[in-house]
Amino acid sequence: MPGLSFLFAGKMREPHFEAAFAEYIKRLGGYTKCEVREIAEQKLPERPSEREIAAALAREAREFEKAIPKGAYVCALCVEGEQRTSEQLARKLGELDGRGVSRLCFLVGGSYGLDEGLKKRADWRLSMSRMTFPHHLARVMLAEQVYRAYTINAGKLYHK
Amino acid sequence: MPGLSFLFAGKMREPHFEAAFAEYIKRLGGYTKCEVREIAEQKLPERPSEREIAAALAREAREFEKAIPKGAYVCALCVEGEQRTSEQLARKLGELDGRGVSRLCFLVGGSYGLDEGLKKRADWRLSMSRMTFPHHLARVMLAEQVYRAYTINAGKLYHK
Repeated sequence: MPGLSFLFAGKMREPHFEAAFAEYIKRLGGYTKCEVREIAEQKLPERPSEREIAAALAREAREFEKAIPKGAYVCALCVEGEQRTSEQLARKLGELDGRGVSRLCFLVGGSYGLDEGLKKRADWRLSMSRMTFPHHLARVMLAEQVYRAYTINAGKLYHK
Repeated sequence: MPGLSFLFAGKMREPHFEAAFAEYIKRLGGYTKCEVREIAEQKLPERPSEREIAAALAREAREFEKAIPKGAYVCALCVEGEQRTSEQLARKLGELDGRGVSRLCFLVGGSYGLDEGLKKRADWRLSMSRMTFPHHLARVMLAEQVYRAYTINAGKLYHK
């Protein structure tokens, strides 16, 4: 199964989300190599303009692009992306493995999501929900779903 | 805005999910009265049969029904339910308030979800994702979305 890179904008602040995320990454480590990197989240005023947001996301996009491993298959998380069930996600990751993808790179933006251009350039746009979740909680949800997918593909019983 | 009852099958085990959930319930307490109740999750073997699962869910359903406050509007969480964006959820909760609903009761099942009959009898079936999440994580996601909805309806800036 492909190695994993999780690239995130901003540092985790809530110890409970950090602990939950770390638990899934630890479990994923039993299946494959995992790398987690946080790029700096651009500072914005409390009620930023559309233009300020776009400029900040563009700067973050450049940092994301520097951090994406060469040859990785890039999956951008966004609310408007493709929805899959957990089983369908597992199947997709299995297919990528079958195609010889050796590294899968997931991108999760900060409070304002990801740059439009970055999303377009990604190989795949995945949505976990039509609802908007705080990006720190979204990291936990993503790590859990990827762990679940690897467990499904390994034919193991998911530890509930 | 309506008072809230969160009814769950089984006890929280992971301290990080418990802390995350408690944080959102504390914040929700600034908007309305919140009640959280856990009903006993029926014990099942590691690989239960369909019949064993159905029997356990039926027993849990009876406990849920005893715990549902009289006159509450009941929302059952399930993967096949209706999907809404966060803004659409806020609108729905606002509409229920406008109709005079004074208590909203959310049901989250255990590892095997909710009894089919219980879901049918609920006033509304809501899906947060096509993906299957662990029910303890689903509680955190639900509390966050309800908190977000109340914040949207109060016209306040969501604290990201």
